[in-house]
Amino acid sequence: MLIVQKFGGSSVSDAEHILRVANRIVQTVKAGNQVVAVVSAMGDTTDELIDLSTQITKSPPSREMDILLTAGERISMSLLAMAINELGVNAKSFTGQQAGIETTEKYGRAHISGVVPDRIMKTLDAGGVAVVAGFQGVHRKTNDVTTLGRGGSDTTAVAIAAALNADVCEIYSDVDGVFTADPRVVKTARKMKAVTYEEMLELAASGAKILALRCVEYARRFGVKIHVRSSFSDNEGTFICDEHEVGRIMKEQDLEAPIISGVAHDSSESMISLVGLPDVPGIAAKIFDEVAKHGINVDMIVQNISKSVSGRSDISFTLPQSQAELGARTLLEVSRELGGPEVHLEHNVGKLSLIGAGMKTNPGVSARFFSALNDAGVNVEMISTSEIRISVVVSLDDLDRAVKALHTAFELDSVEDEAVVYGGTGR
Amino acid sequence: MLIVQKFGGSSVSDAEHILRVANRIVQTVKAGNQVVAVVSAMGDTTDELIDLSTQITKSPPSREMDILLTAGERISMSLLAMAINELGVNAKSFTGQQAGIETTEKYGRAHISGVVPDRIMKTLDAGGVAVVAGFQGVHRKTNDVTTLGRGGSDTTAVAIAAALNADVCEIYSDVDGVFTADPRVVKTARKMKAVTYEEMLELAASGAKILALRCVEYARRFGVKIHVRSSFSDNEGTFICDEHEVGRIMKEQDLEAPIISGVAHDSSESMISLVGLPDVPGIAAKIFDEVAKHGINVDMIVQNISKSVSGRSDISFTLPQSQAELGARTLLEVSRELGGPEVHLEHNVGKLSLIGAGMKTNPGVSARFFSALNDAGVNVEMISTSEIRISVVVSLDDLDRAVKALHTAFELDSVEDEAVVYGGTGR
Repeated sequence: MLIVQKFGGSSVSDAEHILRVANRIVQTVKAGNQVVAVVSAMGDTTDELIDLSTQITKSPPSREMDILLTAGERISMSLLAMAINELGVNAKSFTGQQAGIETTEKYGRAHISGVVPDRIMKTLDAGGVAVVAGFQGVHRKTNDVTTLGRGGSDTTAVAIAAALNADVCEIYSDVDGVFTADPRVVKTARKMKAVTYEEMLELAASGAKILALRCVEYARRFGVKIHVRSSFSDNEGTFICDEHEVGRIMKEQDLEAPIISGVAHDSSESMISLVGLPDVPGIAAKIFDEVAKHGINVDMIVQNISKSVSGRSDISFTLPQSQAELGARTLLEVSRELGGPEVHLEHNVGKLSLIGAGMKTNPGVSARFFSALNDAGVNVEMISTSEIRISVVVSLDDLDRAVKALHTAFELDSVEDEAVVYGGTGR
Repeated sequence: MLIVQKFGGSSVSDAEHILRVANRIVQTVKAGNQVVAVVSAMGDTTDELIDLSTQITKSPPSREMDILLTAGERISMSLLAMAINELGVNAKSFTGQQAGIETTEKYGRAHISGVVPDRIMKTLDAGGVAVVAGFQGVHRKTNDVTTLGRGGSDTTAVAIAAALNADVCEIYSDVDGVFTADPRVVKTARKMKAVTYEEMLELAASGAKILALRCVEYARRFGVKIHVRSSFSDNEGTFICDEHEVGRIMKEQDLEAPIISGVAHDSSESMISLVGLPDVPGIAAKIFDEVAKHGINVDMIVQNISKSVSGRSDISFTLPQSQAELGARTLLEVSRELGGPEVHLEHNVGKLSLIGAGMKTNPGVSARFFSALNDAGVNVEMISTSEIRISVVVSLDDLDRAVKALHTAFELDSVEDEAVVYGGTGR
């Protein structure tokens, strides 16, 4: 098999961890596989580099920031290649540029525009391991170094797996896989055997931190099978693949594909409401045009008949807490042009999502969803749905209780004898 | 003027130092100059990276070691570019590869084979400062990253100055310039205004640590004027240039070009002697062939009639202390093939050199040299000379005394009212 293995910063935090990762790679090679290893910067290196830059300037040029941050992966990749060589297997490290990771010129959050993995293939053909710096690429036209932004190293791994038509892309971190809910909130959460790309996308968009949205999107587009697993154990983790493959994996394990795959929650958003808008066409366009101009990332949007002013409507939306003040200021300006509807900013909210590919073909899911919340005494402030997801905004104080209630109502709780491993405590 | 400014690791050891260096560059630009800044890794970064690698392996592949070590300059160069931008002047940083520093493939001590400074020139033409990572380059054919070894960043600076036909290459460090002797040994040592390339080469080869030999050689080959000065003061340092230019500088300052430029010493060598060699042709060739095969760097060599065995000869040579044991083992093997001459290894030696371009045209220098040593009661064990240098090996215990005696005998001591600044204590 041709396997891409990606190791996050906590898996390579010091020399000892790097040797442990090298050992896993060497075992994989000795089992008869070809391996490309993608690696993040060691532990806190990236934060330390950012800290250095802030000691010099509040507004670093993004080109310089990118080349600064890529130093971290240069260090971890060469050390990992040394460690693999030390264990008797040939390994060569490659920067993003050397690995042929070509990107757009958008510093800080460049997109991969192409992968030319000639040197990786040459290394594999010669029986060696290719170690690739994650998170970075090169803009061919300028020959300038770029970074891929959040989840960048995962995306590097998936992009290389796609370019090489690898059998699987293993993403190693300090968690054991994807769970039916955050085990820190729901003690009875279970590790899933497999989820579809669509479910994982909804999970990621709904607050699950396991994989970045873009990485899953890339994998879906190119049909890359992802295996999320822990670098601290040999346990199988969670496969992310297409519906057909999920079915195959569940069948292999004598399991039925579940209707609901999990519950996700997100407490990092705020909610802004505009109350008493004139009910004329183009109002929403006007509002979200202004919001977009200020670079604000809107998540859920709900519009309905105003609760407080008859003949008028209300619009509410959620946005990252970090942009909440900017959002409120922007909306107050817009409000002046729109005859002064009230602007409310609410920080004390949480988002709760139920995700499952089986929702499409199973009526009655939403009824069960809302009655479970009702029984738990949770009041719903906003609702939004997709084919395979129901999301609601509730009071932050109710969030954990609501997550548990849904997890139980949809029979996701683990049976007693099933061990749940979470965090770096495995094996 | 087009000025290349090179800053060593101690000049950019933290954010505060980097901002100070940025300020100096900005002042140079505001005075109407174009500036290319070449920068080493911050403070102890390189040592820390080496330390990390030794935690992983005793014998890292040299290719991986090189890419590891180049991370340090990536960090310092981008931070320096940020700092210059922060002070209101445009600056862009370039890796060795981006700056067009092309090298041979000899990892760890690559030689610069060419400089293609297109991006540097473009930056200068646009009114900006180009910040270049020292010590590193790229092997074009493989696109692999190389390092230049000891004195690498100085060589980068001189190579760029040559390629751009710069007016001067300023090398900043924590010393004020080149002195007539090591001020830690000779309190009355004076800073020289100017020395010729040839004198500087002899000084470097004789133990002066200011500049690496290869950097001075490169400068001489391409006629690059070097200005060695302190990053902690605005004082003029020492110019290194051709004889004509040295004459011009001295005349400008109303000074006569000195016959002797300085005294250098080196206590890092050992001496090996072979006593009682058969006096037949090809013996020396045989010996130094074996020595070269073991990668031993021989410095001084002296052969003469054996003191102890008549009809035979002795050969002595000096070599780095770090290679002394290897050298002795090698010579013992050779001795067996040559009828068993005795092999002596002596660690307690020091080398002492008097250097001056004026030696060529001034008879009587060596007479004065040896009588000064004699007056000081210093016994000489080996002698070697060039057109502009006399070197002797003496007992290590006599070394400092011998340096002082020569410094005084050749009237190099500073006059009372001349301030000598050495080390990072200036302004």
